[in-house]
Amino acid sequence: MPHLRTFRRLAVLTEGGLDIYRNKTAMSLLRFRPEDVVCVIDSKHVGMDLQRIAGVGQGIPIVSSVDEALPLGIEWLVIGVATPGGFLPKNLRPQLYEAMRNKIGVISGLHESVDGDPNLVSLSARYAVELVNLRKVPDEDQHTISTGKARSVKALRVLTVGTDTNIGKTTTSLSLDRYLRLQKVKSRFVATGQDGIMITGRGLCIDRVISDFCGGAVEKMILHEAKGADVLVIEGQNSILSPCYSGSALSLLHGSCPDAMILCHAATRTMLRHTDVPVPPLARYIELYEAMLAPIHPGKVVAVAMNTSELDDKAAAEAIRRAHDDTGLPVADLVREGEAGCKRIADAVLRVKRKQPSRRAAKG
Amino acid sequence: MPHLRTFRRLAVLTEGGLDIYRNKTAMSLLRFRPEDVVCVIDSKHVGMDLQRIAGVGQGIPIVSSVDEALPLGIEWLVIGVATPGGFLPKNLRPQLYEAMRNKIGVISGLHESVDGDPNLVSLSARYAVELVNLRKVPDEDQHTISTGKARSVKALRVLTVGTDTNIGKTTTSLSLDRYLRLQKVKSRFVATGQDGIMITGRGLCIDRVISDFCGGAVEKMILHEAKGADVLVIEGQNSILSPCYSGSALSLLHGSCPDAMILCHAATRTMLRHTDVPVPPLARYIELYEAMLAPIHPGKVVAVAMNTSELDDKAAAEAIRRAHDDTGLPVADLVREGEAGCKRIADAVLRVKRKQPSRRAAKG
Repeated sequence: MPHLRTFRRLAVLTEGGLDIYRNKTAMSLLRFRPEDVVCVIDSKHVGMDLQRIAGVGQGIPIVSSVDEALPLGIEWLVIGVATPGGFLPKNLRPQLYEAMRNKIGVISGLHESVDGDPNLVSLSARYAVELVNLRKVPDEDQHTISTGKARSVKALRVLTVGTDTNIGKTTTSLSLDRYLRLQKVKSRFVATGQDGIMITGRGLCIDRVISDFCGGAVEKMILHEAKGADVLVIEGQNSILSPCYSGSALSLLHGSCPDAMILCHAATRTMLRHTDVPVPPLARYIELYEAMLAPIHPGKVVAVAMNTSELDDKAAAEAIRRAHDDTGLPVADLVREGEAGCKRIADAVLRVKRKQPSRRAAKG
Repeated sequence: MPHLRTFRRLAVLTEGGLDIYRNKTAMSLLRFRPEDVVCVIDSKHVGMDLQRIAGVGQGIPIVSSVDEALPLGIEWLVIGVATPGGFLPKNLRPQLYEAMRNKIGVISGLHESVDGDPNLVSLSARYAVELVNLRKVPDEDQHTISTGKARSVKALRVLTVGTDTNIGKTTTSLSLDRYLRLQKVKSRFVATGQDGIMITGRGLCIDRVISDFCGGAVEKMILHEAKGADVLVIEGQNSILSPCYSGSALSLLHGSCPDAMILCHAATRTMLRHTDVPVPPLARYIELYEAMLAPIHPGKVVAVAMNTSELDDKAAAEAIRRAHDDTGLPVADLVREGEAGCKRIADAVLRVKRKQPSRRAAKG
């Protein structure tokens, strides 16, 4: 598993709707590492109050271009957008070129490989700047098959699973991990995608691994990260019912063998992303996640993390109440409800932990 | 999708137990393209009757080395073994080197890339022979996401699905396709793995595709192959409950959106390959394959293809009867029962076809 260094003095390039879905990498950085973000580059929102329009990033300026960001002392330009298929949008290219010409390194978590792009590679060589591809998978992580060994680790494994892609699994995982650590639980966040890696400086983009070895790459990471941790909070990816990316989600499920799952859902999502497939009921997801794991490990969905960002307070409370009625599980929006929401989810997770003393003793 | 040419005058290298599990590429060739196999190279079985020990390949000689195969007029050496993780066994290497030194090209469907191996690449350059990697995925097949579009094609889609990896999905698919064509049905076999590609000279190893694009690669192939076909028989891969490879299996399910599935099972398999996980009951698989597909497409498991190769006639008949009792579906061993078995499975598939006139008319 690659250990990247932690990057500082970042300019986050969004260019476009500053919302949590189109710019999830940016939003994760602003939510979990605001102290390292110098500015956001977004010509459509220049000068506006970031906290007011995005709900995060208080006091961080929005500027129009790399040129304006340079005097602020930036050291890296981070591509903050998430696109279908992970392509680099054309309109972002001029800003990348401008950054490199000014000796500013570029960090990308997109599928489209910045380090395979002749223009970018040639510029990086010419100006001697780094081009960091967060999605690069080392060769040694492309040849292991999963055999269900994650079951054998002592740490409690908590996986965020989704009703769809791009719905709040990273945010839920990072919020829960942060809360647990504040409660003095030996929790560790396991990054499985570009957003988690960007935040923690380590991890592996499992959806980039050769399909047959995807579960093996996850398993290897779990075995490695479990040392010294009591709880592993594993960043979920995609959904087992998303036609686009379901294979990665199932590999993650079988590679990590979670004891507890947190089902992440966006209250206003009615169709699965990039398809005309309606989102099935929450209870169906719970049934299928548990059934698909059961032959290998008896992990359960113990809570629902609801993304109500597009609703007002009243509608959000109603959506949370309805999800609770539908599933019988604790439900919270960890962003809207803050610590109270985190506590509700954490309590559900820790109840699983307390139920398994024999298992821990046996393996300890 | 790459269109390989069809290779002829093959020496098939097995070296080791000549059984259907360890040498599935060899067995597929011997079963479906015996006219192109000049000999089998297997020093442990040299001179023995191939038909008697492997059940296929009547009259094809078993020789001990490439040197002995050369006078028979071979043009290609095919690696016939299937290994966990797809590694090239060390003991096969000397035969590969010997072949290339004698201007014989090498064909491999293993994950371990023969065209990335410095020794093999250097020999191939020195002796100007071809090194064919059946598992190579062209870049253009690594960037599409699946969106469930396979549903829109007119042809009936039949997918072989498995209770485990390496269990008879390729054999079932090829047998069914051959039988349907003999009945004048416009059937086409869609190769999704090295064995199918070796037989047909076209297709794509979907388990080699980047995890997030695996479903998309399948969908692209389905849309392409559907032109002019009434039935697509799609080569299945792995199992959605195999911890090793489940991601590839689910991507194939969602990428192809089958109307009918044939569940392939080995009567004597009790543990999932490479794990200590017991094989769940057939009825559970049927439920889960249908449930995991249902939100996107209402495909059904319509028959069970049973691999009874390790049983005697009486035990095989008993296993087939029991599987029928457990599932309520037509069950056959297409190899042991030959045409009668194929007919039973084909009839179950064609009943689905006849049930959907409105769908065909609407899309036609």
